[in-house]
Amino acid sequence: MDEERLQKQFGFLREIDKEKFITRQTYLTGARRQENDAEHAWHIAVMAVLLSEYANEPVDVLHVVSMLLIHDLVEIDAGDTYAYAGVPADEQHEKEARGADRIFGLLPADQAEKLRALWDEFEAGETAEARFAHTLDNLQPMMQNHMTGGQMWRERGIALSQVLRRNAKTAGGSEALWDYAQAHFLAPHLGKELKDDRT
Amino acid sequence: MDEERLQKQFGFLREIDKEKFITRQTYLTGARRQENDAEHAWHIAVMAVLLSEYANEPVDVLHVVSMLLIHDLVEIDAGDTYAYAGVPADEQHEKEARGADRIFGLLPADQAEKLRALWDEFEAGETAEARFAHTLDNLQPMMQNHMTGGQMWRERGIALSQVLRRNAKTAGGSEALWDYAQAHFLAPHLGKELKDDRT
Repeated sequence: MDEERLQKQFGFLREIDKEKFITRQTYLTGARRQENDAEHAWHIAVMAVLLSEYANEPVDVLHVVSMLLIHDLVEIDAGDTYAYAGVPADEQHEKEARGADRIFGLLPADQAEKLRALWDEFEAGETAEARFAHTLDNLQPMMQNHMTGGQMWRERGIALSQVLRRNAKTAGGSEALWDYAQAHFLAPHLGKELKDDRT
Repeated sequence: MDEERLQKQFGFLREIDKEKFITRQTYLTGARRQENDAEHAWHIAVMAVLLSEYANEPVDVLHVVSMLLIHDLVEIDAGDTYAYAGVPADEQHEKEARGADRIFGLLPADQAEKLRALWDEFEAGETAEARFAHTLDNLQPMMQNHMTGGQMWRERGIALSQVLRRNAKTAGGSEALWDYAQAHFLAPHLGKELKDDRT
């Protein structure tokens, strides 16, 4: 048994417990409370297992799931940035990259490198797996907003154009899922909880 | 686009949001609150990705992760049973099996069958993947109890013999991880937060 290796792995596993305290904007069933990053990551990992048939290109499901499980860990240091907060992307990425250095750096070197590469791949969004991962990451809050009566959109005064800008690349991972989301998660709220600002 | 298939898949994905409300006994960092099933499932899925090298037998990691992601969904109907509550195993399994029928039954037939088979495999604990999944499912609360100063053990007056009975099969998935857990998660609390009832 490699004691030092195990110590590092469990050091990381204890640290990431903190992801359970990072609150997102999205409401859960009945709008009883807001979701946290760990719950969100679990939900989209299940989505990856069940919805990979709709990816535009064939994807390695374990690769997608692994990416989704760890994609928000950097927020332990950088915090959750509200999708419509308008924080400059550079500034946010810089904070998150420092988080990635510290958090993945707790692992043994080979695994630190592997998880950092996974996160970089997600951030770059250029592989089939990263594109599909982003689609699920964007779809899940939309599903939650729909199932909680659009409450988040209403409270924040969100307009369709903002959602569409935010989802400019969602179809890049799965056209079928993006079509479904527009019809079932957005359309029912348009002009109601979600401002219709089409000209 | 197969509308009916997608409706069923998203019906299931909305339903499982409720797993985020199922509270476990385990405390999170700083014992600020107790963990829920979705957070637990996320944590052990990450463990599966990082610790598969310690499985007694080679395991298919995606299979283990998929099993772990869905293993507690039945508790949406059956509730969480406290590990030391002494509920008869038959009675609990019966309730959970009815939950499995309903919840997995929301999915299209092929996926309902696949997830039900995964859950049955986990419950039976007879494959290398199921044995390793159980090891992680048992190890994570032990790690949490350790990192929160053994508070749950103290509050509940838990004795070593109870933990050992509960973990009779934990070494079956990974001897290395069970050895590590005994030395690092249990030993420091023995005769303190965790009653030492060795005769």
